[in-house]
Amino acid sequence: MIIKLSQLFLRTLREDPAEAEVASHKLMVRAGYIRRAAPGIYTWLPLGLAVKARVEQIVREEMAAAGAQEVFFPALLPREPFETTGRWNEYGDNLFRLQDRKKADYLLAPTHEEMFTLLVKDLYSSYKDLPVTLYQIQNKYRDEARPRAGLLRGREFVMKDAYSFDVSHEGLVASYHAQRDAYERIFNRLGLEYVIVKADAGAMGGSASEEFLSPSPIGEDTFVRSAGGYAANVEAVAIAPLPAVSAADVPAAQVVDTPNTPTIDSLVELANAEYSREDGKQYFASDTLKNVVLAVTDIKGKRSLVVVGLPGDREVEFKRAEIAFAGFEVEAANEEDFAKHPELIKGYIGPVKDGVQLLGEKATSGVRYLLDPRVADGTAWIAGANVTGKHVFNLVKGRDFVADGIADIAEIRAGDPAPDGSGPLEIARGIEIGHVFQLGKKYAEALELKVLDENGKLVTVTMGSYGIGVTRIIAVLAEANNDEKGLIWPEQVAPADIHVVAAGKDDVVFETALKLAKDLEATGKRVLLDDRQKVSPGVKFSDAELLGVPQIVIVGRSLENGEVDIWNRRSGDRRSVPLESATSELS
Amino acid sequence: MIIKLSQLFLRTLREDPAEAEVASHKLMVRAGYIRRAAPGIYTWLPLGLAVKARVEQIVREEMAAAGAQEVFFPALLPREPFETTGRWNEYGDNLFRLQDRKKADYLLAPTHEEMFTLLVKDLYSSYKDLPVTLYQIQNKYRDEARPRAGLLRGREFVMKDAYSFDVSHEGLVASYHAQRDAYERIFNRLGLEYVIVKADAGAMGGSASEEFLSPSPIGEDTFVRSAGGYAANVEAVAIAPLPAVSAADVPAAQVVDTPNTPTIDSLVELANAEYSREDGKQYFASDTLKNVVLAVTDIKGKRSLVVVGLPGDREVEFKRAEIAFAGFEVEAANEEDFAKHPELIKGYIGPVKDGVQLLGEKATSGVRYLLDPRVADGTAWIAGANVTGKHVFNLVKGRDFVADGIADIAEIRAGDPAPDGSGPLEIARGIEIGHVFQLGKKYAEALELKVLDENGKLVTVTMGSYGIGVTRIIAVLAEANNDEKGLIWPEQVAPADIHVVAAGKDDVVFETALKLAKDLEATGKRVLLDDRQKVSPGVKFSDAELLGVPQIVIVGRSLENGEVDIWNRRSGDRRSVPLESATSELS
Repeated sequence: MIIKLSQLFLRTLREDPAEAEVASHKLMVRAGYIRRAAPGIYTWLPLGLAVKARVEQIVREEMAAAGAQEVFFPALLPREPFETTGRWNEYGDNLFRLQDRKKADYLLAPTHEEMFTLLVKDLYSSYKDLPVTLYQIQNKYRDEARPRAGLLRGREFVMKDAYSFDVSHEGLVASYHAQRDAYERIFNRLGLEYVIVKADAGAMGGSASEEFLSPSPIGEDTFVRSAGGYAANVEAVAIAPLPAVSAADVPAAQVVDTPNTPTIDSLVELANAEYSREDGKQYFASDTLKNVVLAVTDIKGKRSLVVVGLPGDREVEFKRAEIAFAGFEVEAANEEDFAKHPELIKGYIGPVKDGVQLLGEKATSGVRYLLDPRVADGTAWIAGANVTGKHVFNLVKGRDFVADGIADIAEIRAGDPAPDGSGPLEIARGIEIGHVFQLGKKYAEALELKVLDENGKLVTVTMGSYGIGVTRIIAVLAEANNDEKGLIWPEQVAPADIHVVAAGKDDVVFETALKLAKDLEATGKRVLLDDRQKVSPGVKFSDAELLGVPQIVIVGRSLENGEVDIWNRRSGDRRSVPLESATSELS
Repeated sequence: MIIKLSQLFLRTLREDPAEAEVASHKLMVRAGYIRRAAPGIYTWLPLGLAVKARVEQIVREEMAAAGAQEVFFPALLPREPFETTGRWNEYGDNLFRLQDRKKADYLLAPTHEEMFTLLVKDLYSSYKDLPVTLYQIQNKYRDEARPRAGLLRGREFVMKDAYSFDVSHEGLVASYHAQRDAYERIFNRLGLEYVIVKADAGAMGGSASEEFLSPSPIGEDTFVRSAGGYAANVEAVAIAPLPAVSAADVPAAQVVDTPNTPTIDSLVELANAEYSREDGKQYFASDTLKNVVLAVTDIKGKRSLVVVGLPGDREVEFKRAEIAFAGFEVEAANEEDFAKHPELIKGYIGPVKDGVQLLGEKATSGVRYLLDPRVADGTAWIAGANVTGKHVFNLVKGRDFVADGIADIAEIRAGDPAPDGSGPLEIARGIEIGHVFQLGKKYAEALELKVLDENGKLVTVTMGSYGIGVTRIIAVLAEANNDEKGLIWPEQVAPADIHVVAAGKDDVVFETALKLAKDLEATGKRVLLDDRQKVSPGVKFSDAELLGVPQIVIVGRSLENGEVDIWNRRSGDRRSVPLESATSELS
């Protein structure tokens, strides 16, 4: 294949597009791979389409190798199945909704769990038909509030989504791992760095779930990892409760005056000034018990309060709280909430008042009380005394107060121990490029996908879902492979293998370049030939650097010596080789 | 490639789907190629997707051969460009419209003229950049009122749409013919019978246009053709005005009593009974001048009347009238219209009253008067006298009355002469499979696509648009290639080349079938292998006939003699060949 730049529909740009924030977006627009049609919605130009086709081909090959079969669903879908599973509403503003001429409700599919489930229900009825894994590569739609970063977060984008159907959990686990392995092969073939992290379930519902994140400073996902191999999305880090300690030597709890100490900082300062420790050490924020009042609202709109106690040096991370309180909206309590609970004295809230437990469903306030897993039995804390200007010292968990349960919603910090004991955690950012998910029976139950088992009994099918952001991957590849001059595509996805530049004015230059391009094509190479007349060699070289084909061959001045220059785009190495050996050197 | 039926996601059905009207729809659903997701919206199953991919590949190859470059536009588009060209409204209920979370208007694209125009405007600015022809293969959306016949008229469907951009009309004509030639190659390669007919412009606007119709009794398009090679959509047939004849021997016009003759039939009957011709011949309906009152409404809602005079044996065809009165809505005048024009006496309308012209913009009524091109100067007619119960005989066009112009809106009938003199017309039905169109400057003007010409002057670009219904073609192929047993795919689009059936219970049958499949695969064949256990040979044969792979090989009873049976799906021929020569026989 030879693509001639003299004919290619391409215009490279010297200026970054105004709306572009990240390198991949800037460069893919400047190099004429994509073009914005609307916010988060892009047109693919010929070179971009060539890259996209190559990525899709790799995905298809590995899906086939994993035994997955390709189908193709509509993007325009009726409301009913999504109504049945509740997602018509759950998706909120992220869903593009519309009506047809008969006022029937439709949506543009953000994902296809419902449709795959119904298709299998439609055609299959026996355990003998299973397992089966189906996939598609298809345009998806999400009405992102802030479409950003070009292809990294679009509103119309291409995904490969696969779904597995099994009779047993063991089958599901096997199907899951077949896809997970395929994902590793795909990302390895694409040369994409990735980390597999435990993931939260998000809006999908279900049990086991892992994300493939490509580490990147512009990533929207925060994840943690340890040197010992632990890796998880911050939402998915589960802190193990700390073991109980003995409180035998802890003096009895004592209420003291702590005027003007509504904040942790002011409390610690006063404690160190007025109530210095007997061992001479300082008090720290981590010695105090911070009690945060949250309002949680269920899907029917019922709002109630929860108090969460956590070490005073930690903050609540609401992203983690949303996962912990799945199905509820979580926010900080407002003035109105406090007005309904005059027993909660802001700045001085604690589990106990006058030696009697105040917080807790069965305590005097009736307000649910949860504790961070770091608040272990036997540990002593400085906590609010539920009286303005007073705190309790030496308040011991288990001895002086109890809780209704655990709330693992504190922020994760660099240096925190990995939950599996594999060392301190590092915090990094990544871009989600894949997601594998043991959905379980959620969709099959909602849509009644059952098959007859070996004993002739109806059993509900168990499912997995597996997604790869195809267009996002292209952006991630561009993000990871560029320099200040332009793109540097990995060989396996480049729009061409070799970029031949006719750098000169004489016919012999153009003729030689064309002949070389044809010789290379004959060896199976994809060739981009810059045969533009009246374009200077300098502009052609800049364009070659911008377009990012891995190997560049310059047919120009060296031709006088019977040579051409081979230029490696990534390393920048340039060397002259005899014209007659150029083809073999490049094959 | 070997597809094993034991693993393929497939369920063949014995019953026709309830909603299916035509063979292609019934069979593609029964054979597990497609599945309905919503009215006019289909899911592609693995075998269907394989056929689709092969058709798309042929289209891509011929587009590349014609020098067209592939791009890929979004399906979800902003309103603005369609507002600029007026199509946001013109499309009416056929357009799927929606709003995003910010209440901005979007649409699902039914076609992409605007976007291609803007893309070229965005990137190109000089005559040196042109000509260029771009295309895409993409999901399109039209909210058809009556989605019918499966893939033949869907609401989500795949089209190849191409657009050419030229500086000159000559360039446009050349680009047009390059696409037209490519279409002929595509349809020839697909083995599709087609007729190229002159087409009306429809909602596209512009000048020259041809449709590729595949003749079919279930086609929604009516076209005419002559033995001499004329072919046109009925809307596009232009009747040449008949030459003038001499009226020297025609007696003077005479008003006579014709009581109770409000219809042509009653008038002819009375004329023959009461006013018999001097030459002894009968009067026929074609001797009368039928004057039809139409109401035409412009885009601003202004309604006015037009009277069209045509031979009494012809009816107005409103599809043709809509083209003739482009930009106006056309309907029969209603009671209210007649009430405003008491001079128009229903059943007795004619051009002349009391020897004075009544019909015509400058005549006494002021009502515009148009004539069928068959009403030639010098011809004599029996026409209404504009008095109840009276008609005029020997009313001569040119001598006794004139018209404001021609209205070529009468129905075309089998046997009518072709406008180009190439013989009598035959009327047939066809399915539109392609459309090539010289758009001209309509979109370029609306969206201001201009480039600098050789003299540095801005000139508006001239465009062509070229569409192929990819998914519709598949239905047309299925429609043209089936029998009562099932589908019979042409080789070049079949989901597999050879269908190997393991017809027996013994292991040796399955082993031999698998080995044969592998041998065939090694020769580059695509093989479907029916290796299902516990499925009877009879069911397997029925499925093979239903699925429609062109060659079937049965590994079964003949194996005792060291033979397999080769079965040609189309001809039905079956012959036994030695196992060892089967591969070479089939290669």
